[in-house]
Formats: sequence, structure tokens, C-alpha cells
Amino acid sequence: MRSLDPRLLPFAPILYVAWADGELKPAEVRLLREHVLDAGLAAAIAGPWLDPDAPPSGEDLLALLSWIRDHAGGLEPGARRSLAELGLGLAERAGHPAGPAERAAVERLAAALDLHEAESVEAVLAAERPLADLPEVRPSFDVSAMAELLDGEQRAMRTRVRALLASGRFEPAIGLSTARYRERVLEWCRLLAGEGLGALSMPSACGGMDDPAGFVAAFETLAMFDLSLLVKFGVQFGLWGGSVQQLGTGKQHERWLEDIGTLALPGCFAMTETGHGSNVDDIETMAVYDPDTREFEIHTPLARARKDYIGNAARDGRMATVFAQLETRGERHGVHAFVVPIRDADGAPLDGVAIEDCGEKLGLNGVDNGRLAFDRVRIPRDHLLDRFASVTEDGEYRSSIASPGKRFFTMLGTLVGGRIAVGSAAVTASGVALAIAIRYGARRRQFGPPGSPERVLLDYPAHRRRLLPRLASTYAFGFAMHALQRRYVDREADPRRLEASAAGLKALATWHASGTIQECREACGGQGYLAENRFAALKADTDVFTTFEGDNTVLLQLVARDLLTGFRREFGDMGAWGLARFLVDRARVAVVERNPVATRRTDEEHLRDPGFQRDLLEARRDELLYSLARRVKARVDRGMDGFDALVECQDHALGAARAHALTEVFEAVHEAEGGVPGSSLAEVLERIRSLFALSTLERDRAWFLEHGYVDARKTKAIRGQVDALCAALRPDAVPLVDAFEIPAPCLAPIAL
Amino acid sequence: MRSLDPRLLPFAPILYVAWADGELKPAEVRLLREHVLDAGLAAAIAGPWLDPDAPPSGEDLLALLSWIRDHAGGLEPGARRSLAELGLGLAERAGHPAGPAERAAVERLAAALDLHEAESVEAVLAAERPLADLPEVRPSFDVSAMAELLDGEQRAMRTRVRALLASGRFEPAIGLSTARYRERVLEWCRLLAGEGLGALSMPSACGGMDDPAGFVAAFETLAMFDLSLLVKFGVQFGLWGGSVQQLGTGKQHERWLEDIGTLALPGCFAMTETGHGSNVDDIETMAVYDPDTREFEIHTPLARARKDYIGNAARDGRMATVFAQLETRGERHGVHAFVVPIRDADGAPLDGVAIEDCGEKLGLNGVDNGRLAFDRVRIPRDHLLDRFASVTEDGEYRSSIASPGKRFFTMLGTLVGGRIAVGSAAVTASGVALAIAIRYGARRRQFGPPGSPERVLLDYPAHRRRLLPRLASTYAFGFAMHALQRRYVDREADPRRLEASAAGLKALATWHASGTIQECREACGGQGYLAENRFAALKADTDVFTTFEGDNTVLLQLVARDLLTGFRREFGDMGAWGLARFLVDRARVAVVERNPVATRRTDEEHLRDPGFQRDLLEARRDELLYSLARRVKARVDRGMDGFDALVECQDHALGAARAHALTEVFEAVHEAEGGVPGSSLAEVLERIRSLFALSTLERDRAWFLEHGYVDARKTKAIRGQVDALCAALRPDAVPLVDAFEIPAPCLAPIAL
Repeated sequence: MRSLDPRLLPFAPILYVAWADGELKPAEVRLLREHVLDAGLAAAIAGPWLDPDAPPSGEDLLALLSWIRDHAGGLEPGARRSLAELGLGLAERAGHPAGPAERAAVERLAAALDLHEAESVEAVLAAERPLADLPEVRPSFDVSAMAELLDGEQRAMRTRVRALLASGRFEPAIGLSTARYRERVLEWCRLLAGEGLGALSMPSACGGMDDPAGFVAAFETLAMFDLSLLVKFGVQFGLWGGSVQQLGTGKQHERWLEDIGTLALPGCFAMTETGHGSNVDDIETMAVYDPDTREFEIHTPLARARKDYIGNAARDGRMATVFAQLETRGERHGVHAFVVPIRDADGAPLDGVAIEDCGEKLGLNGVDNGRLAFDRVRIPRDHLLDRFASVTEDGEYRSSIASPGKRFFTMLGTLVGGRIAVGSAAVTASGVALAIAIRYGARRRQFGPPGSPERVLLDYPAHRRRLLPRLASTYAFGFAMHALQRRYVDREADPRRLEASAAGLKALATWHASGTIQECREACGGQGYLAENRFAALKADTDVFTTFEGDNTVLLQLVARDLLTGFRREFGDMGAWGLARFLVDRARVAVVERNPVATRRTDEEHLRDPGFQRDLLEARRDELLYSLARRVKARVDRGMDGFDALVECQDHALGAARAHALTEVFEAVHEAEGGVPGSSLAEVLERIRSLFALSTLERDRAWFLEHGYVDARKTKAIRGQVDALCAALRPDAVPLVDAFEIPAPCLAPIAL
Repeated sequence: MRSLDPRLLPFAPILYVAWADGELKPAEVRLLREHVLDAGLAAAIAGPWLDPDAPPSGEDLLALLSWIRDHAGGLEPGARRSLAELGLGLAERAGHPAGPAERAAVERLAAALDLHEAESVEAVLAAERPLADLPEVRPSFDVSAMAELLDGEQRAMRTRVRALLASGRFEPAIGLSTARYRERVLEWCRLLAGEGLGALSMPSACGGMDDPAGFVAAFETLAMFDLSLLVKFGVQFGLWGGSVQQLGTGKQHERWLEDIGTLALPGCFAMTETGHGSNVDDIETMAVYDPDTREFEIHTPLARARKDYIGNAARDGRMATVFAQLETRGERHGVHAFVVPIRDADGAPLDGVAIEDCGEKLGLNGVDNGRLAFDRVRIPRDHLLDRFASVTEDGEYRSSIASPGKRFFTMLGTLVGGRIAVGSAAVTASGVALAIAIRYGARRRQFGPPGSPERVLLDYPAHRRRLLPRLASTYAFGFAMHALQRRYVDREADPRRLEASAAGLKALATWHASGTIQECREACGGQGYLAENRFAALKADTDVFTTFEGDNTVLLQLVARDLLTGFRREFGDMGAWGLARFLVDRARVAVVERNPVATRRTDEEHLRDPGFQRDLLEARRDELLYSLARRVKARVDRGMDGFDALVECQDHALGAARAHALTEVFEAVHEAEGGVPGSSLAEVLERIRSLFALSTLERDRAWFLEHGYVDARKTKAIRGQVDALCAALRPDAVPLVDAFEIPAPCLAPIAL
């Protein structure tokens, strides 16, 4: 073999891989000698292995490999992080620790050669048994401690709901007819009401528990089971009950809330109209006050104004909170909410109320969605939910909120709870899908080298790639939703900020759920297609999550508008653009220049630094927001209507909103990690946080490349780090889904 | 206003937008003056508008804008392509046509400023009415001519099937119980068999029509309707009938084919086993020859060897083609196909045959999937389908194909028809989803500027972005599948190439279908969630397309293996790597240097040049293939098993396969365009081809950025071109889906 000067040792693994992988061509070798290593070092140490005119032979390389392998045993795990670390470790063990100059040269060489680091280390050290099944190992962390962390303050409530779901009273409903399924869901709902779950958030004076936090936690946990039950539960107690509670006042609470909480009075939340899905401001149902009879007349003036897609309407609802344009004394006052009886005690529609069944849906067929049309239906004056506005007996309109716009948004603001609940449920459902797919993937075998047993799916890198980044994101979204729930329950001072966070996280979490459930279903192959394995229901039922409680695209525009408002507040409506540009530039410089080689730095320590990850995510948010603001302003300055200006910049608006929401998710997972320093959870949470952040950066790398935050070398290193994190999390994959503590009836035969 | 030298005119629109959008900062202006415009030009002409110390005022800019607008009326449409073209057009009309130096300067200025071209032109010319509803316009092309082109040689067959579907005998099945649904699907199947469609590809001697091309066309068209019917039809006639026809010989044909074609003999294709989804080579069902009785004994030795997911098995099948390991005289000869009776004339399972129902599935519940296990079931010797191998009475094994590996692949090769059929059906289903969503989007209104009527969805740029690139891809995949069908029917010389194409296109087309159907469902909001609007069924039924007839991931690895074989054939097994590198490099140079500014050229003519589009797609394929080959070889050279080497390079393998299949799709749509020069279809097909290619490049831009084929300026221009193409195709959107000629019962209430 060629000379193996001890001072060569730090370079050995890199040189081996570069030659063996065929990366090195003579011209490159010359460049390396001239520019990467200083001349003395190149000639004296690495020289014999970097001679463009005499590349090492196959025999040389094999000898070098043997030497590396023989001496690598017992090195610390850190030495496997990169070829440079491996070399430095080898040198140290051989009694020739590298000095600072050599260390720097090793790192420059590794960067210049652009090797696929993690994969290469694996290949160098373990080519003879690279992919055998992993041995069963114990989780790296305390699974119960993780479960407690995930459940947070509401652990007791969540445990109670899980115990209920495991009690044998909830069995999966598969293959039922729609009629029978609706009946079953109503029975389940009564069961939950009987346990007091329906009244959790209601005032104790009305039989409730004054516990909105518990209500949200219960709802979120119910999402482990049948989602028709979840939605029916949410419609009855959250939307119907919630609208009476939040838009009504004392007497109205006394009259209705107790019966709503026990399900003695099933009801609906009738906002959406056929012609107006997301555009609530323009609904056309009328509520005209008649001072002679002291009644409101609720009327559907045209077909497109019928209330559509209303849960609980087709079969069970007796009353409905109906949103309509209030008119009194010939004057309109905008959208208000009215309690309107729709069925008699026997379930027959009342006079003037036309009820239609929406029929079969893609999913959620246990929920009886229907359509309501009103033909001059009269209701007493005090059926106007009057927390924010009322009409006197003789028809005078009074409101504590002067501006109709503000009044409208205050009323809509009561929807924020629904969005938080749906986003949280989406995360729970993602966890169920992952628990099934990961447990199956840890057992199912398919293909393998000739003559060997077939290999466990989760030991294929591509299979891990499908599932583990999504597991990390599910953890991150889970922490983010819980942080949001706390802000909601604590009644954060600025409701607009809470609404914006709820809108953004709802959109991202529900899209995350759709993608994750689909990926899990495909990762289970044909088994995933059988109804008994739950993906059929999870997929179909969550599909509409992206559309209801606010269409995701519309919600992200709401987020963008809020960001623009904040931007304007900070930089003024017309001026100070220079300042804004300056701040964005400064942030960019900070990211790019925090370290002189930041756009190119590719080592693990850097990539897994939360500061680096946050900087990139925030820089994108800021740059997109600045760019959006500039574009909108340029258009408005040119005389374009504000609506059209935002429509023309929709791409930027959606991008900025998404980037903003992702920074919130990142902060949440990072905060969770920071809350358990030194515990057995810290290390695995660091991996989860890094995998969430780096797989997000990897997916969106085109943007970061286009805007000069990273270069191709760095995106490659990020990809390598994602691979390495997937491998590192592999032994913890099953324990991580075990920590969700999903009851058996909510799992699947292939997962048990 | 500042001086408006006529020689400034070519620059006017660019300068206006750069200042008005706030793009220009003094430092940049200096750079522009120094580096982009030569000094004389800058000072003499654009000088007053490019003075870093005295930027134009708002009034100056408004005056400039008015002048541009006043003079832009009546310019040719080409002038709207870019700000540079607009300026050049203005100058020409004003009697001061630009000379070559000015023209070059204009283009350099536009490139240096990095403006969003298409959007900017629109904003400059039409800021006062940027987004009004588009007027109804006539299609730019002859819709019937397009329908003929899409149908191709099989227009008669496709028209016949569409007429059948529109005949009133096929009504959508919504909300049926599984039992009733299966019954309905069998009735439909009988109806189709009665029309002679089942026997289309069979020999005329057996009551068939010797028309495999017609069979594939009929199958593909049936995918407009219920996909359970499609799959049941495919199982009975394509898989069960096809296996007897292609793996059996004359006497076997005579005995069974006629009854299969009329559905008098329903049967199954029993290949997959519980423990072996995609890995057919390792199936464990045994077929041991017993020379004493001259029978084979079919046996399921363990639970995981039961046949699983077998269509037609749970309810209707009387016989099955069973794939099993053939053993005779104590020796194994690999997987062979046997015809095994499973039910008697009354439908009861035969002795030794255990049949289980797979139960409810995510979709396709009109197909009776089941599981089959055999307990030493005996069948006559001549039930071995004997086209490729037979066993003599006394147990001697004979085969025309010596190598067991080759024999196995020859038998599997008969699956290629199934893959082509599924890929084609996926494209049809995508077309149905798009027809519904585009017709709905062209009518449904939502939101709008205050005081104006709400706006048609398809006039929102973001909505067009969701649907029109997918429409273009659906056209491209349609042409690709038809080209593939021709190669299949014409029995292409090299079956391996055909199989690789079929595998790649099946994978890409079925993923395309899943994504498209989901996007269409979301684009229809809550309406898309109602079963009557078809997305529920389309989504659930096509979901498994990505898994069955070969899991997509497994199929792409098959493509990669074929590509590697070709690569090795070309460059030798061990040597010639230098040559390969050379060729890849040369290709890269050709792309990057075909024009000195190719990585940066951003004009429309360049971006829509099929040569440019092809170059990029092919360069990626070649580079990924080279990189894959190098990586696999490096591992094998290090002593790694070939299986593990490919597993470790799975990412590259999937990438290379996908890149390869996309070049095939591109060639198909480009060929279709080339086939109609000068016709009314040529222009719209150019747009479709460009939108397919550019939206593909846009989606995958991270790779092209990372590998230096484009820079950020160019990806931005590609994005702008995709926007422009979506806008240009907007008036043709409905006519383009009309050309699919989908019968009304296959559409949805919201699409009629």
C-alpha cells in the first residue's frame, strides 16, 4: 500500500470515498491541491494520495479501507457523523490528534468534494452488512414521560376520553348503511353527553363545568375514533351550543344551554348558504323585524340563499342558530344570529321550514348534513342572540359595537374555537394514521437480497423517508396546537392575532393530515386499502377538513391580511419602505453572514442548530411579507382596487401566510424541547425538531436556492441530514407512536 | 413630465414598472447605467429616467403610464408578451423603430431588472380593469377535431362505448349496500359482455374479435363511468381471460375462452399472496406434480401463502388462474400458472378451497375481492397453462425457455397489458374530474371587489393555477398512453423496453390521477364533497391504482433497472465510465451553452421552444442515470450485494425512472402537436405542450437549480410563463374538457 503517514489519517476516509466513488478526476485533484490544501500540507501529507498522474489502484483503496475499518471499532458515535469526524477520530485514537490547521484542511476538503456524508460514513464502515434488519432496541426515551408531555395540562381529561373509547362501548362502524350509521353516531353522542362531555365548556349555572380547555382536549382526543362522531359532537356542543353561549346572554343561556349540553335539544349552526361558501358577509337570508308582532321574520329570498351543508339538519336538529341579514325600520344592520326552531317534538319540520338531506358524501356519512330554507318563519324578538346587538320592542337597533364591520368580525371571531378544534383533530388523526403505518412497517417484510429473509419495510431508507418526517411534523403540529389552545383558553389580549394563528395553523395542520394519511395508506399497500385498517375512513372523513370551518386558501389570505396590517402598523401606510427593505436586508445579511460560510456550511452541528433553522424560516417569512406588501402597495398606488391588488398577489399572500405559520410551528416544537432539558426526552425531541425543520427546508429548498439563502452544496447536506435523522429515529419510531396512547379500537388489525 | 425622447420609447414600459414597483434603488440604477446600457445610450436616451439622484416623481410616472396606455391600443398581441416587446411595439408605431443596438439594450435591461414580465404587462396596460370577468369567447380551436385527435385510431370503439354509457342503461350507483353494489356491477358486466366487449381481444375461433387495440380502448373509455365496473371488467376479461389466452395454448383456449368472453365462466387471477404483495418471485403456493394420478396438487403451505385481494373471488368466480411454485420429480421450476376450479355450479366453494371475503374497502366496493387458500386441491395435468412450459405424463419438466429467470419474466411480461390499461384508465378518470371542476369553476362565483358582483372562480389566477397545468398534463399523459397502446398492440420488438415504458407511465399516470382528482375535489369546495358530484367515488376508487398492477415505487425501480441495463450495454460493465461522464458533460454543455445565456435566457420564445424543454428534461434523465450507475457500481465494487446497492441508491433510482418517463410523455405530446401543423389545433396544442413542460420544470426547479441548469432569474421567468399560459388557456378551458366527450351520466350535477 501507499505510504500511510500518520498525519494522513484525518484525511483517509474522505480520500477513500472520493476515489472509490469515482468523484475525483485528475483536473479536480489539481484544483484541490492548489486551492483547498495549502501547498505544504498537500505535498507532505496527502500528496501520495492526491497525485493526478498516479491515482491509487483498487488494491491501494481496499488496503486503505481495511485499515480504516480495523481501527474504527470503538470510536464514539460522534465519529460517524461525517467523514471528517471519522478521520479526526481515527487520528486521535492512533495517537496523532490533528492540529487546528489539519482540522481546518480536512473540513475544507470535505466541503470541496461535496460528498454525501452520512451515507458515505455508513458505506465505509459497514459495507459488508449495510442493511441487515436492525436489532430490537429499547426506546431511547421514557415513553410515559413523552405521553405526559404530549398531553400537557389536560392529561387527566385526555386519559378519561381514551379510557371511554377503550371501554368497549365504542366499536368501529364499518359497512353500515347511512341511516344506520347516523343512528349509531347519535347513540354515541348521547353516551358522551351522559358522561358530561357535552357540557364541559358551559357555565356551571347551566349544568356545565366552565371548562373550555377540557372541552377542546376532549374533542381533540375523540378524533382518535370515528370522525363522524367527532363532527356531530362538535356541531351539537361546539357550534350550536357555542353560538348560543358566545353570541347570547344570560336569559338565553338559561333557556337553552342545559338542554343542549345533555343533547335533549339537538341543534344546528346554520351559516353557510348554497351561493356563499366562504363569503359569509354576503349571505342573503333575511331577518326582518316586525314591531307589530314583536317578531323577526326569517326568510330565504332565493334558492342560493338556502342554508346548505348544515350538520344535524337532515335528521336530528330541533333548532338552529341561523345567520341572517338583520333589517329593522327599513334599515339593514348586517349579519346577526337568531335561534330558529325547525322541527317539532316528533321530528317533523315546522311550518315554513323546508328541510332537505344533502345525501351521501365522500365521508362523514354518520353526520346528517342538510339544507334549510325558510318561508317567512316568525320567531320572537328575544331569539336574536343579543350579546353584541339587540332590537328594542319598537324596532330600534342597538349595539355595543358601533362599526358594522367590527361587529361582524367580533361575531365571526367566535368561530375561532372551531378552527382550533378542527386543526387539533387533524393532528390527532395524523397520529392515528402514523401509528398504524409505523407499527405495520416495523413488522411487515418485503423483498430482500437473494437467499436472505425478506426485509422489514421500515429498514428501507425510502420507507423511513415516507413516514418519519411526517411523524416529526405531527409532533411539531401537536405542540403548536396545544400552545394555541392555551392562548385561546387564556383569552389572549389581541383576538386578531389569535384568529390569525388559528387560521394559519388550521390550514397547515389539515393539509398535513390529508398528506400524511395518504402517505400512510400507500405505505401499507393493499392492506391500507381495506376498510378494517381505518385509512378509508380517516382519509374520507378528514378530506373536508381542508374546506370546512373556513376554506384553507381563504384562511391563509386572512393570515396574510393580518400580517399586512402588522406590517403597516410598523412601517406606516405609505412611507418607511426604505426602512422595511433595510430590515429585511439586515435579516438576510444576518442569516447569510452569521458565519462567513453560512450559505455553504454543511456540518451537522450547524444544520441542527435551532438558531440556523429559525433564521431561515423567519427570513423567508420576512422576505415574502415585504415582497407582498410592496406588490400590493404598488398596485393600490396605481389605482387598483385593494381586493384586486390582493388577488393579483395571491401567490405571495399564500406563501407569506404559510411561511409565517411554519415559524409558529417551529417555535412550538423548539419550546417543547426547551422545557425538558436533561431529561430522557431532550435528545429525541432535538431530532424531531431538526427533522421537522430540515425536511421543511428540504421540501421548500427551491425558494431558498432562488433567494440565495443556501447553495446546492448545502441543500445536498440538508438532504443528507434528513436521511441521517430518519435513520437515527428509526429505533424510536414505534415508541414515538406508542406515546400517543391510542386505544386499541382506534387502531387497526395490521397495527396490533 | 420629464423629457420623452422618442428613442426612449422602447424602454418606457420597463422603466415605468421598475420605478412604480419600487424595484429600483439608487445603487442599482448606477449599476444599470454602468453595466447594462452602454454609456452613450444611457446618458442620451434613458438618462433622465435613470438618474440615481433624482428618481422620477409619482406624477412623472403617472404621465408616463398614460402615454403608454394611450398609444398601446391596437398593438399586435405579440406586443403583450413582455415589457420589452411592448416598448419595441410602441416605438415602431410611433415611427421610431428600434435599431439592433437599442433592441439588445432593451432586452439586457429587462433581464437585469428581473421583472415579473407577463404580470407586469397586464398591470401596465389594464390596471384600471385588471380582473373583470372574461367575456364569453368562442374556442380557439375546432372541438370535434380535437376529440378525433384524442380518440385516434380507436375513435369508433370509443364512440361506441360512450354511446353505451349514455344509453340510460348505466346509472350512477350511489349509496348502495356492498351486496347490492356487487350485484349491480355484475349486471353491468353481463351487459357489456352481451355487447361483445368482453371477447374483443380473444381469438375469433373462440368467439372473439382478435382486436386487442379495441379492447384496451374500450377499457380506457369505460373508466369514464363507475370504476368498480372497470375493474371487474378488467379482472374477468383482461386478467382471467388474458392469462388463459397468453399463458395457455390452443386446446386450453378452446376449452375456456369463449365462456370467459361471455361471462358464462367468471374467474379470477390469483397471483398476490398475503405475505408477498409485489414480490411475486417469492410466492409460496405449491403445485406438486403427482405422476401416479397425473395431477397437480395445489397447496397453501402456510397462512401467508394464501392468495389475497383476488378480484371476483369473494362472490362470483368459478375458476382461477393460480400462480404457484411448480415442483416435479422433487425439483422446483419456479412460478407457473394453473387453472384451478374454485366453486361449483351453484356457487359453493369446492372441497379443499377456502374462500374468504376481504370485506369493505376504501373504494371499489362493487368488486368482490377475496382470499383463496388451497388444501391439497388436485387438478388435471393439462390445467397447467402450457405456452412456456409443460410437464409430461411421467413428470418430466419441459420448457421452451431454458433460464428460469427469463421464463419468469416472460410470464410476468403478460402483465404489461394490465399496466397499460390501468395507466390509461387513470388518465380517463383525471379527465372526468377536470371536466367537472372546470365546468363548475367557469360558472361558480365567489367573493369580489366591494359593490361588484362576485367573480367567476376560473378568473382567479390561483384557481386557474390549480386546474390548468393538470389539464395540460392530462392531455400529455393521454397522448403518451395512446402511443404506448400502439406499441403494445403492434408487439414492439424488444418487450423489455415496452415493459419499462408501461411501468413508468403507469406509475406516473396513476399518481397524476390521485393528485388531479384531489385538486379538483378541493377546487369544488363543499360541493366536491357530495357523492353526487362524483369525486368521492373517483378518489376512493382510483386510490389503489398506485398500488395494484404493480406498486408504483416497485415499478419505478423496474424502470431504473432497465435503464441501468441499457447504460451498461452502451458503456460496458466495468469500463468506459469516462466516456459516460463525457457524454453527460457534453449534454450539459449543450443545454447550458446552446445559447450563451441559456441558463439565464428568459424570453417567451426561448421558454416555449420544444428544443429547450426537451433538452432540460433529457439532461436531467441522463445526469440522474449516470449518477445512479456510478453509485451502484461504486457499491458493488466495494463488495456490496447488488440488491443492497440498489436499495441504498433508491432515491436516485426513483428519480432517474421518473425523469425518464417524463421525457416519454413530453415526446408524445410534442408528436401530437407535430401531427396537426397549420390546423386549428396547432396553437392550443403548443400551449398545452408548453404548459405541461414548463409546469413540470417549475415543480422540479429545485433539481435544475441545484445542478446549474437554470438560475433564479430563469425559474422566475418560467413561473411567469406558466401564469401566462394559464391565462392564455383560460378561454379554451371548457372546450378542452368538452373534447373528452364525456357522457352526461359520467359527469356531475354541478358540471351540467
